[in-house]
Amino acid sequence: MISIKDRKLIFQLSKKKYRVQNKLFVAEGEKTIEELISNGWKYEMLFSTKKNLYPDARPIKLSQMKQITHFKTPSPILGVFNLPQSKRIMSESTTIAIDGISDPGNLGTIIRLCDWFGLSQILCSNETVDCYNPKAIQASMGSIVRVRCHYLDNLGDSLKSLKKPIFGASLNGKSIYKYRLVKNATYIFGSESHGISKDILKNLNCELTIPHFRTGKLKPDSLNVANSLAIFLSELSRV
Amino acid sequence: MISIKDRKLIFQLSKKKYRVQNKLFVAEGEKTIEELISNGWKYEMLFSTKKNLYPDARPIKLSQMKQITHFKTPSPILGVFNLPQSKRIMSESTTIAIDGISDPGNLGTIIRLCDWFGLSQILCSNETVDCYNPKAIQASMGSIVRVRCHYLDNLGDSLKSLKKPIFGASLNGKSIYKYRLVKNATYIFGSESHGISKDILKNLNCELTIPHFRTGKLKPDSLNVANSLAIFLSELSRV
Repeated sequence: MISIKDRKLIFQLSKKKYRVQNKLFVAEGEKTIEELISNGWKYEMLFSTKKNLYPDARPIKLSQMKQITHFKTPSPILGVFNLPQSKRIMSESTTIAIDGISDPGNLGTIIRLCDWFGLSQILCSNETVDCYNPKAIQASMGSIVRVRCHYLDNLGDSLKSLKKPIFGASLNGKSIYKYRLVKNATYIFGSESHGISKDILKNLNCELTIPHFRTGKLKPDSLNVANSLAIFLSELSRV
Repeated sequence: MISIKDRKLIFQLSKKKYRVQNKLFVAEGEKTIEELISNGWKYEMLFSTKKNLYPDARPIKLSQMKQITHFKTPSPILGVFNLPQSKRIMSESTTIAIDGISDPGNLGTIIRLCDWFGLSQILCSNETVDCYNPKAIQASMGSIVRVRCHYLDNLGDSLKSLKKPIFGASLNGKSIYKYRLVKNATYIFGSESHGISKDILKNLNCELTIPHFRTGKLKPDSLNVANSLAIFLSELSRV
């Protein structure tokens, strides 16, 4: 059974305001919850429609899971976890910065990508969607335990203080296949609709572009931001 | 106004069965609809909450759009388009094949990626999600007009008949950074949960892998399939 109070809380945790207020977030999916728990992240509640997944998960019916899930298709397990305490920004050779991405699925995929390429943090502007959004958590597939998102009031100033060259992904820059990418640098990605903010743009050393290979008059406008990042990280790592 | 009959039809078009039966599909979003119309794709109905987007769009209220949209957040325009007639499989140097991907957002992103890298078709197994699913259409951002998905009963045999080397993306293959990728070849991507089917696996010339760069005991399991494809296409095009 799930009390009305718990159901209301889980529903509210789709919003950042309530996550911050309660210091809690919701995670769903076997893989994600396994990663969180095996990395020592603490939960307040755990509900499961499958028996024997976790000894202390409260067994519920599918109809009840459908009432609390944040997804159209619920997974067999949902947990309410404590938000982790904030960490210091570390010194890492390559820094990935995100300026204003609003799609939580994209951010989750970006977290998973950074994990794959061995990075441990992402610097985000405050306009960027929260990484503890249930959809970001699900798309990160547990990589959130190894990649910390730092939200910053003034991303531009923070990037300048790193004293490394700053490169921005754009549609009108130099080709990443021709420009020699350096590892000890910051790479910033803006939102697909608004790009990188003006006050950050002025601090860039260079804008870089993934050239497109479509001939003919009609062409695609842009690449998905997570796919762009995938290609940048691959270019940086392949050397 | 939207009649109950039209509302029911638009709702049904979320399912492939009804799309095939009615030879129609639903597209939402200004960018997508602009691409479809400017490429000569014909619509049966067009609804818009914004005035003057298209002269013959039927003006509706946001509350009505919320009743017909396939998304949580509706866009200002929704169209019901005729399914295009099937085309012949063309001879293209690089062939991308998809075996069993079930997430429509992933397939849409893959279509957009293939468009960016200048490809005009994707060969899909029948187990792959339909490219006219409203979510695939939205994620493709209009690239569906330039990239045709061919669904095949026996993908393995079709790939063999192309008489080109076949490479599969897997987690245990040779590093794509060490193996010399060839353009005149087929690259096949399986679903994240089930990988490439057994009867296709046996026809592969080689399995290829994007190596990960995470040190330490705990590592991410896999990359999102669209991100993997982005990296493969980048490697193939950068030469």
